[in-house]
Amino acid sequence: MARARQIIEKNPNGMGAYTLSTGMPFVRKAVADFIQHRDGIPADMNRIILTDGASKGVQAALTMLTNKPNDGYMIPIPQYPLYSATIELYGAKQVDYLLDEGNGWQLGESELNVSFEAARVKGINPVALVVINPGNPTGAVLSHENIEMIVRFARKHKLSIIADEVYQENIYSKELKFHSFAKVMHEMGETDVTLFSFHSVSKGFLGECGHRGGYLEVRNMPDDVFAELVKLQSIALCANVDGQIVTYIMTAPPAEGEASYPLYKAERDGILNDLREKAEILGNGLNDIPGMETRIPRGAMYAFVKFDLPHPAGANPETMQPAQRLLYETQRDTEYCLRLLEETGICVVPGSGFGQAPGTLHFRTTFLPPKDDIKALVASMKKFHTAYTAKLKG
Amino acid sequence: MARARQIIEKNPNGMGAYTLSTGMPFVRKAVADFIQHRDGIPADMNRIILTDGASKGVQAALTMLTNKPNDGYMIPIPQYPLYSATIELYGAKQVDYLLDEGNGWQLGESELNVSFEAARVKGINPVALVVINPGNPTGAVLSHENIEMIVRFARKHKLSIIADEVYQENIYSKELKFHSFAKVMHEMGETDVTLFSFHSVSKGFLGECGHRGGYLEVRNMPDDVFAELVKLQSIALCANVDGQIVTYIMTAPPAEGEASYPLYKAERDGILNDLREKAEILGNGLNDIPGMETRIPRGAMYAFVKFDLPHPAGANPETMQPAQRLLYETQRDTEYCLRLLEETGICVVPGSGFGQAPGTLHFRTTFLPPKDDIKALVASMKKFHTAYTAKLKG
Repeated sequence: MARARQIIEKNPNGMGAYTLSTGMPFVRKAVADFIQHRDGIPADMNRIILTDGASKGVQAALTMLTNKPNDGYMIPIPQYPLYSATIELYGAKQVDYLLDEGNGWQLGESELNVSFEAARVKGINPVALVVINPGNPTGAVLSHENIEMIVRFARKHKLSIIADEVYQENIYSKELKFHSFAKVMHEMGETDVTLFSFHSVSKGFLGECGHRGGYLEVRNMPDDVFAELVKLQSIALCANVDGQIVTYIMTAPPAEGEASYPLYKAERDGILNDLREKAEILGNGLNDIPGMETRIPRGAMYAFVKFDLPHPAGANPETMQPAQRLLYETQRDTEYCLRLLEETGICVVPGSGFGQAPGTLHFRTTFLPPKDDIKALVASMKKFHTAYTAKLKG
Repeated sequence: MARARQIIEKNPNGMGAYTLSTGMPFVRKAVADFIQHRDGIPADMNRIILTDGASKGVQAALTMLTNKPNDGYMIPIPQYPLYSATIELYGAKQVDYLLDEGNGWQLGESELNVSFEAARVKGINPVALVVINPGNPTGAVLSHENIEMIVRFARKHKLSIIADEVYQENIYSKELKFHSFAKVMHEMGETDVTLFSFHSVSKGFLGECGHRGGYLEVRNMPDDVFAELVKLQSIALCANVDGQIVTYIMTAPPAEGEASYPLYKAERDGILNDLREKAEILGNGLNDIPGMETRIPRGAMYAFVKFDLPHPAGANPETMQPAQRLLYETQRDTEYCLRLLEETGICVVPGSGFGQAPGTLHFRTTFLPPKDDIKALVASMKKFHTAYTAKLKG
């Protein structure tokens, strides 16, 4: 009740009035404090823009960075399709780099170099590097060293970094920690590489996705360039005020000593512990299925599961052209997922929707359902996979 | 209270869950019923998309229609800058047509023809015609005949129509009526011209702009093309749910016989009557200032006021090149508005921000402030304008 009164006091215009295009100052102040508290680094509320969810923030960054048709974005494979779709929409070029499945889906420096050089050979001018940490669909959490390497790489090639950090609260391993790009760059004394980082009320333990709340923080950008970004935002006036308030609540949660803190803490820890347990149940269960393999997800809300299927007689993907092979593999994982849906009611997303290394098949699934449902789901998938594989072998 | 319960029942997922990318079905059903009731024509809820305010809907339509860099949009001059900004952003071409100030800011057929032909000569391919009715910044309400002419023109030249109808409730004259493009096209039996029409919770008597609610209705579009529009919407998931609910409340207001109807009717009529009176106070007051001229606004929330300024000695705009003249006039109205702001605290927007016929100067102002403020404002402007003009004369 005290919080509700405080919000009404700080926002006397109510929920029905436009705000500044960057969002309400008291919310941006809360976001800056949140970053400062999370990372122990300074944060400037005047470099924060409140957005209708992270998606709109990402689209604003890509709008700003896309200048010529040969401008390219280095994006992870597998990736969240917001990136490929927006790049295509804005008439820019997609430059894939493969995440290293064998190394917990971290980024590999040599792979980044290969990807960058291959793009240059094709006449593409990479302008930014997209990193999703924790990963969607991989569930991976990047190490401090990995992020340092990425920053050095961006610096060397004059790339901006687009850091999709919407799953920052979703980490389920005591040994792992979320390292923000802002923090690592600050520690490295990096002041040239432009950073766009994103957060959202849709993930974490809130999961308030319907409110479309989120923010975008920019670092290392000249004032006049930032002013242009604000101008872009002003075309559609401002982010919805309800979402701004939910962003405020996320970034300024009940503090120790406040009346609602114990309940807040219990709910937060309960949700995150439950997700951790469910990630293990799902990961272990799927790994028990012959022909399926996945890491126990350490972050985000997903498992990206590798699975094998026998090839039909006469099909040899090794001898196919790349485009033909991609089509062949896309048909195989899509058909698999559709049959799974039809026969068991379980909906997973084909790996080809996110991109995957040639010669591999995956699907993305989630550990959001209740525990018992996950157990039943794993049993059901085992039965389906065994029968489907047997049928393909003929 | 009954309505709140009904919303909870119809949306059991609450405000925090994603909806379909097109928006919640019960809200789209309410929008279709609203159109049907308003116009007496059939409306299909599956051709309605709920958007984060009308701005995002307009941007979706322009995204969809822009294919090649020489694709052009015919937009009114003066216009609301959402259009010029979005066209520039999407790399398309702006094709101006002048509204006829002498004829109450209606559209003129010969002006449309001249504008279209001039664009074709420059290699531009007009794909759509933007119409804002009631007008922003003009405050004009288009006649039935004028809309018929526009539809015939669009049909002849295979243009889509982008009908910005967000001020449809804001009409302040008993003799005038809002005619939607959907209704006029239905009456004409028009089934080829694609229509995008927009409405918003930000205007009317609601003015709930902070919620970013609105909708887009599409007519005369093949199913597979509409499916692509929905796919575009899905990139950023869905419109915020709070805004969807406000759109529901706008399109399904209390009905006669319901407990809250008398209060609703009193508030609605009170706000609209008050706006009508204030439009008259503002319009009459400004017309009393020598060198200022405006029509009493009949719609929307604005007056677009023509004003004269003496030219400094030696300046003759008639002998200037078009670009030089535009710069000269832009400097004059901008300087005027800045001085007005600094000396009186009154903020109006220079006509050059909306576009205006060469050789004319305007500013946009609004009749939203309380009556007494408008009276004081008019007095203050009279004093300022007299002094400013005298000073220019030297």
